[in-house]
Amino acid sequence: MKSILVTGCNRGLGLGIVKHLVNDTNPPQNVIATCRIIEKAPELREIAEKNRNVHILTLDVKNTDTFDRFAKDVESIVGDDGLNVLFNNAGYSPKSTRINMVKAEQLAETFAINTIGPIMLTKALLPLLYRAAAKNVNAPVSCSKAAVINMSSFLGSVELNTDGGLYPYRCSKAAINMATKSLSIDLKSQGVLVTCIHPGWVKTDMGGNNAPLSVDTSCSGIVKVIKELNEKHNGGFVQWDGKELPW
Amino acid sequence: MKSILVTGCNRGLGLGIVKHLVNDTNPPQNVIATCRIIEKAPELREIAEKNRNVHILTLDVKNTDTFDRFAKDVESIVGDDGLNVLFNNAGYSPKSTRINMVKAEQLAETFAINTIGPIMLTKALLPLLYRAAAKNVNAPVSCSKAAVINMSSFLGSVELNTDGGLYPYRCSKAAINMATKSLSIDLKSQGVLVTCIHPGWVKTDMGGNNAPLSVDTSCSGIVKVIKELNEKHNGGFVQWDGKELPW
Ligand SMILES: NC(=O)c1ccc[n+]([C@@H]2O[C@H](COP(=O)([O-])OP(=O)(O)OC[C@H]3O[C@@H](n4cnc5c(N)ncnc54)[C@H](OP(=O)(O)O)[C@@H]3O)[C@@H](O)[C@H]2O)c1
Ligand SMILES: NC(=O)c1ccc[n+]([C@@H]2O[C@H](COP(=O)([O-])OP(=O)(O)OC[C@H]3O[C@@H](n4cnc5c(N)ncnc54)[C@H](OP(=O)(O)O)[C@@H]3O)[C@@H](O)[C@H]2O)c1
Repeated sequence: MKSILVTGCNRGLGLGIVKHLVNDTNPPQNVIATCRIIEKAPELREIAEKNRNVHILTLDVKNTDTFDRFAKDVESIVGDDGLNVLFNNAGYSPKSTRINMVKAEQLAETFAINTIGPIMLTKALLPLLYRAAAKNVNAPVSCSKAAVINMSSFLGSVELNTDGGLYPYRCSKAAINMATKSLSIDLKSQGVLVTCIHPGWVKTDMGGNNAPLSVDTSCSGIVKVIKELNEKHNGGFVQWDGKELPW
Repeated sequence: MKSILVTGCNRGLGLGIVKHLVNDTNPPQNVIATCRIIEKAPELREIAEKNRNVHILTLDVKNTDTFDRFAKDVESIVGDDGLNVLFNNAGYSPKSTRINMVKAEQLAETFAINTIGPIMLTKALLPLLYRAAAKNVNAPVSCSKAAVINMSSFLGSVELNTDGGLYPYRCSKAAINMATKSLSIDLKSQGVLVTCIHPGWVKTDMGGNNAPLSVDTSCSGIVKVIKELNEKHNGGFVQWDGKELPW
C-alpha cells in the first residue's frame, strides 16, 4: 500500500499502528496520522520529525462538517494516486456500566465518535479511495488497492455478549459493524474492500491495565492482518490474530 | 398480562397492536398507548373512547428528559401492580439509501428515535417493570410477569444484510438489538424478559405498498408471539411468525 490514513494516533492503538507501519520492511509512502490536538501528541510528532513519510493532520471525528475540508488536505498529500487505506481507529468508551447508569447524552456522544464519525469520514474520502482503486484496477481486492478498516470490538458482537451493560460502547460498535457490512456491499463494485477489526483486549487508556495484550503485540498483529486482507474478508469481522468473529 | 405500554400508536403497527390487544379473548386490564400529538391520532382516540382499558399518553421518544415525568403518569395508571410489558414500537426510517446520500444529522436523529429513546424509556420504566415482576415472583418469565419488547427489523441483522445501504436505519436497529441483548442479561435477575421482534415487511407508511404483509396479519402474529414468550426467548430476536433471526 502506498498510503494509509489512521485516526486517533496520539496515543493507544493508533500510535502503535503508526509505529508498526513506519518500521515495516515495506513501509507506506504516506502515513497520514490524525489527532485532535497536535500539542497533545508529542510521541507522534517525534515520529513525524524522524520519518518524512509520516504526515500529521488534526481531526476531531465528531466534527463532521470539517470533513470535506479535511479531504482536500488529504488529497494534497496523496495526489493522483488516491488513498489506499482509511483506518477508522479513533474511539471512545464512557465508563458507565449497567442500565441504571446510562445517560442519553452519553449514548449520543458515543454514537457520534464511534459510528457516525467513521461513516461520514468514509463518505468524505470515497473519491480518494475510488481514485486509488482505479489506479490499481487490475490488482486483486486488498489494502494495496483500496480499503476501509473500521476498528470495532468483540464488545460489538451481539452473539458474544454474555456480560451485558456497556450500552453506549457496545451499541456503537454493533452499529459500526452494520455500517461495515453495508459499505462492503456498496463499495464492492468500485473495488474498495471494507472490514472491521477487533484489536484484542489491549493495555491502553481504554483497555486498562488488566488487559492481556500489549499495544505492540496487538498492533503487530493488526498490521499483518491488514496486509493480508483479500476479497474473502470483505464485509467481515476479524481480530488482531486473524481469527474471525461472529456478529 | 395485566398491563402493556406500546409507543407510536397513532398509525402503523402500533395502532394495529393496540387493536389486536383490545380484541383479544383475554384483553389486558390496561393498554397504555402513546402517540406524539393526540390531535393526529383520531383512530386511536376512537378506540380509547370505546374501550375503557385503553389509555392514551403523549410521548416523543426523542424527548428523553420527559421520561421521568412520563413514568409518573404510567404509575398513576398501573399502580401497585406495576407494568408488565413495555413495547418499544415507535420508529423512524429516513429515505436515504447509499453512502453518498448519508447525512450526519440523519444518523443522529435515527439513533435518537430507534435506539436511544427505547433504552432510556426502559431505564425510566424499570421500577414499574420490577414492581410487576415482584408481584408475580413465582410466575415463569413471560409477558404476564414483566418484559421489554423492542421492535427491531430484519434490516438490523448484519448477517442478513445482503443489499447494503440504509445506514441510519440498519445501524440503529443493529444497535437496539445489542441493547436488547445487554438488557436481557442485566434484567434477568429481576425476572424481566427482554426480546426484540421483527414484524415482517408490512404495508405501513414505513413499509410501503410493496410489502407482502398486512398490518392485521403482522399484528395478529406479534400479539400471539409475545403471549408465548418464555425464558428461552430472553435476549433473542424473533419475527412475527415465531421464527428466530440471526444477529
Ligand atoms: N484497548 C482495547 O482493549 C480495545 C479493544 C477493542 C477495541 N478497541 C478500539 O480500538 C480503538 C483505539 O482504542 P485505544 O485502546 O487506543 O483507546 P485510547 O487509548 O483511549 O485512545 C483513543 C484514541 O481515540 C481518539 N479519540 C477519541 N475521541 C476522538 C474524537 N472525537 N476525534 C478524534 N479522535 C478521538 C483519542 O484522542 P484524544 O487523545 O484526543 O482523546 C485517542 O487517540 C478504539 O476504536 C477502541 O474502541 C480497543
Ligand atoms: N413496516 C415494516 O415493514 C417494518 C419492518 C420492520 C420493522 N418495522 C418497525 O416497526 C415499528 C413501527 O413501524 P411502522 O411500520 O408502524 O411505521 P410507521 O407507520 O411509519 O409508524 C411509525 C410510528 O412511530 C412513531 N414515531 C416516529 N418518531 C417518533 C418519535 N420521535 N416519538 C414517538 N413516536 C414516533 C410515529 O408517530 P408519528 O405519526 O407522530 O410520526 C408512528 O406512530 C418501527 O420501529 C419500525 O422500524 C417496520
